[in-house]
Amino acid sequence: MHAPLPRPVTAAEVSARTGALIQGGDPQRSFVSLASLESAAPDSIAFLAGRKYLSAAQASRAGAMLVTQALADQLPGDLLKLITPDPYLAYAQLSQWFEAMLAAPAGAALIHPLAVVASDAQIGVDCRIDAGAVVASGAVIGAHSTLGAGVSIGAGAQVGEGSVLHPRVTLYAGVTLGARAIVHAGTVIGADGFGFAPSAKGWVKIAQLGSVTIGDDVEIGANCTIDRGALDDTIIGSGCKLDNQVQVGHNVRIGAGTAIAGCVGIAGSAVIGERCMIGGGVGIAGHISLCDGAIIGGMTLVERSIDTPGFYTGAWPVQTHMQWERTAATLKQLPQLRQRLRALAARIGLPKDPS
Amino acid sequence: MHAPLPRPVTAAEVSARTGALIQGGDPQRSFVSLASLESAAPDSIAFLAGRKYLSAAQASRAGAMLVTQALADQLPGDLLKLITPDPYLAYAQLSQWFEAMLAAPAGAALIHPLAVVASDAQIGVDCRIDAGAVVASGAVIGAHSTLGAGVSIGAGAQVGEGSVLHPRVTLYAGVTLGARAIVHAGTVIGADGFGFAPSAKGWVKIAQLGSVTIGDDVEIGANCTIDRGALDDTIIGSGCKLDNQVQVGHNVRIGAGTAIAGCVGIAGSAVIGERCMIGGGVGIAGHISLCDGAIIGGMTLVERSIDTPGFYTGAWPVQTHMQWERTAATLKQLPQLRQRLRALAARIGLPKDPS
Amino acid sequence: MHAPLPRPVTAAEVSARTGALIQGGDPQRSFVSLASLESAAPDSIAFLAGRKYLSAAQASRAGAMLVTQALADQLPGDLLKLITPDPYLAYAQLSQWFEAMLAAPAGAALIHPLAVVASDAQIGVDCRIDAGAVVASGAVIGAHSTLGAGVSIGAGAQVGEGSVLHPRVTLYAGVTLGARAIVHAGTVIGADGFGFAPSAKGWVKIAQLGSVTIGDDVEIGANCTIDRGALDDTIIGSGCKLDNQVQVGHNVRIGAGTAIAGCVGIAGSAVIGERCMIGGGVGIAGHISLCDGAIIGGMTLVERSIDTPGFYTGAWPVQTHMQWERTAATLKQLPQLRQRLRALAARIGLPKDPS
Repeated sequence: MHAPLPRPVTAAEVSARTGALIQGGDPQRSFVSLASLESAAPDSIAFLAGRKYLSAAQASRAGAMLVTQALADQLPGDLLKLITPDPYLAYAQLSQWFEAMLAAPAGAALIHPLAVVASDAQIGVDCRIDAGAVVASGAVIGAHSTLGAGVSIGAGAQVGEGSVLHPRVTLYAGVTLGARAIVHAGTVIGADGFGFAPSAKGWVKIAQLGSVTIGDDVEIGANCTIDRGALDDTIIGSGCKLDNQVQVGHNVRIGAGTAIAGCVGIAGSAVIGERCMIGGGVGIAGHISLCDGAIIGGMTLVERSIDTPGFYTGAWPVQTHMQWERTAATLKQLPQLRQRLRALAARIGLPKDPS
Repeated sequence: MHAPLPRPVTAAEVSARTGALIQGGDPQRSFVSLASLESAAPDSIAFLAGRKYLSAAQASRAGAMLVTQALADQLPGDLLKLITPDPYLAYAQLSQWFEAMLAAPAGAALIHPLAVVASDAQIGVDCRIDAGAVVASGAVIGAHSTLGAGVSIGAGAQVGEGSVLHPRVTLYAGVTLGARAIVHAGTVIGADGFGFAPSAKGWVKIAQLGSVTIGDDVEIGANCTIDRGALDDTIIGSGCKLDNQVQVGHNVRIGAGTAIAGCVGIAGSAVIGERCMIGGGVGIAGHISLCDGAIIGGMTLVERSIDTPGFYTGAWPVQTHMQWERTAATLKQLPQLRQRLRALAARIGLPKDPS
Repeated sequence: MHAPLPRPVTAAEVSARTGALIQGGDPQRSFVSLASLESAAPDSIAFLAGRKYLSAAQASRAGAMLVTQALADQLPGDLLKLITPDPYLAYAQLSQWFEAMLAAPAGAALIHPLAVVASDAQIGVDCRIDAGAVVASGAVIGAHSTLGAGVSIGAGAQVGEGSVLHPRVTLYAGVTLGARAIVHAGTVIGADGFGFAPSAKGWVKIAQLGSVTIGDDVEIGANCTIDRGALDDTIIGSGCKLDNQVQVGHNVRIGAGTAIAGCVGIAGSAVIGERCMIGGGVGIAGHISLCDGAIIGGMTLVERSIDTPGFYTGAWPVQTHMQWERTAATLKQLPQLRQRLRALAARIGLPKDPS
């Protein structure tokens, strides 16, 4: 659980931050942590995200709970309830407030003596640049941004205002990152796309002359890789959220507000719509497109375009290894089984298989 | 193969290190390398891990061999045998001894002038901190530990005694790593978990207020990512071994002694038991649990909880592309085929399908 | 699209660089960019890679086009054509020339004052070593090579002539990389292979005494991991091309000219032939072999050796989630369905199923 807050917060303050209404308790009662139902203490605030967690909420030691009106009645009468139509969203708002209180006070201004900033780079007001960070010629860092230890910003790259690049993030030359970006450690943006022309002497490299353009309010997890385009740019729309170890090939375009879970690989020139949700470990083939609002289940290979919004999946269900061996062996005979079934049906005069 | 040892070792020394008994040779005979059966020379020590490698062992040029008594009789009479009930374990012990002999002698004490260590960080005795490493305020580094070039230790993070962090490892603020850890280059521990609440204005970030707690004797491969918890901590038990590019989501808990091969992705809040073995490329869904001793075959999607120990698998077997196209097309009709089969059976009066 | 060239290039120059013949235009006409068919302007050169892009080429605003003689006749008469038997290869050549023109002029010689180079490391002529890079004792860097910001070269490691290591690349001790290598940011070469012997007290580490040997003209993407061998070396042949986030286990051997797309995981001791093409997200099991010229479709698990060249696949095709649920449920009964079908065939006297 997180460290103690520098000062307790009252239910009234929580109400003011989230718009939640106080029910069954004293607005001046104070709390020192935000906690899960299981680990909450009497001075913790918890949240009830939905009916499936109701019994856990009833058993929780939390002193206050973010909860809908509909579920509040099923909680103990002496629990302080914070009534809100969307407890999970209220929890998100509260978590950001707590994080801000927990953050170490910002020190003085802040280019570390062991950071290296080119003389013609532009650094906005109130930026912090940590030890070992390198900002190359012509780069532009927007105001109020942070470059962690060992961040590398290539020549002419641009980082929007209020962005946080955690340690060891690498932006290659010319990459553009919007405002309020959060990029986690080890992520590489703008490396060469994977492009080679075959020739009699082996692979001939196609220099990757495009770049990467990323919108505002984008968060990118740790150790991701987002390649620069071959000629045009790779594009990630505003409000996208990428988890860790996501791979984005050259000339991919991702629409605004799309969320991509960990370990997803997107091959070159794929086009992904707005507000899609891509599950962990998914692979998306090159040169295909996903419409707005497509939802893809974990570890699915999307090998063809999808043009109707909805939930799509494709993955072998887990079995005991012995069952799997039998099923996998039979799978290979599936086309023959189908033929056999047709022959049988014909033999006994069943109407022709419509499939 | 490894560089030559600084001095030869005798069979008697090997026997003392491993407990193996010398058979068929002179205890004072000396050797300069540990080698595979195929690449061994007469001054090499090799090992015979099991009967399936017997013919390779018989053909090997190795001068000495770690081998069980049962297999020793089938090797040439003039080969020096080192008899042990577990040749693979004896090889592991020997490999560690050789590595220690091969290691460059440690120099004097050792904070490089281009490392940056906060004045209130605590650095134990006999630590080495290489160039470009950054240790933030309040961090604690246990005695006899090494931080490689460019390692970044966040505020208040803790590293146990005798640990080795290879170059570019990043620990975010507050992360706790136990004693004798080995963490390979590029790994990121404690980045934000992937948590957002939907709202009318797009995704609202849930600040990740938990941390990561890792036990003793844990090895983590290169370019892994282990996220901090949302409220409670992400937990990895003592003795766990993670290969490269493993992704561990927020609030995952992994029991002691579990081994996880490369490229595995574990979604948030999954609970994995003790002494599990997870194959390469496996995906584990969020909020499910695996019991102690579960073994998962490579590239399986574990989409449901597993509560009986054993070996589990799920992955399409490789086929020629032409066969695959036919099989995949038929697969989509599998539910209809099943219906058809039922209809056929009914038509000819076969007893009702029990399945 | 890429930045403007420092000077326009003429059709005659393009012809000289690529061997393409000028048709339907003035050899002195000049151009300032290389562009895709869709984004080309009248002062751009585009290329027509094949008949499937013909309508896009006919609609393109490009002022010149690399094209085969066969397709040239179907393009507008007033378009300047650059006739070549392999437009994609000519485009690759042109892209490299443009990149060279776009590159910032190399500055003076070039070990940054904040780089750390061991006194006994050998640095070839005309190398550039950026801030925060660390070159350990005994390392050898070939002439005309570049080590980006924060690159870490372990003791005794070798980098061939004319190589480029982008920021934060880590080579562990003893690794050998050939000439003209390109290694993208965050890649780790030579971390310990994943080897442990089970014992009553838990996993006993097998020290990884081998190294990694990589041939000439190899390109490796961002955030890859290539492990050192246990005893013998891990080997990657000349001319191989690896995309981002590829994981190569210990003692893997990869033949010359093989191309491996993003997110591929190759388990220990696998042997991959020459000129193979491995699709994105593929998993290759340990201790198996792929013959020369094997082609593997995306996200396939190659769980057995392949000894005939050709195209191999294995992955569940994407379905709507509802269809998938039905199909996956039926899949588990596939062996029983097969039995049932046999019983039916026997009942009505169909000849015995040959499968």
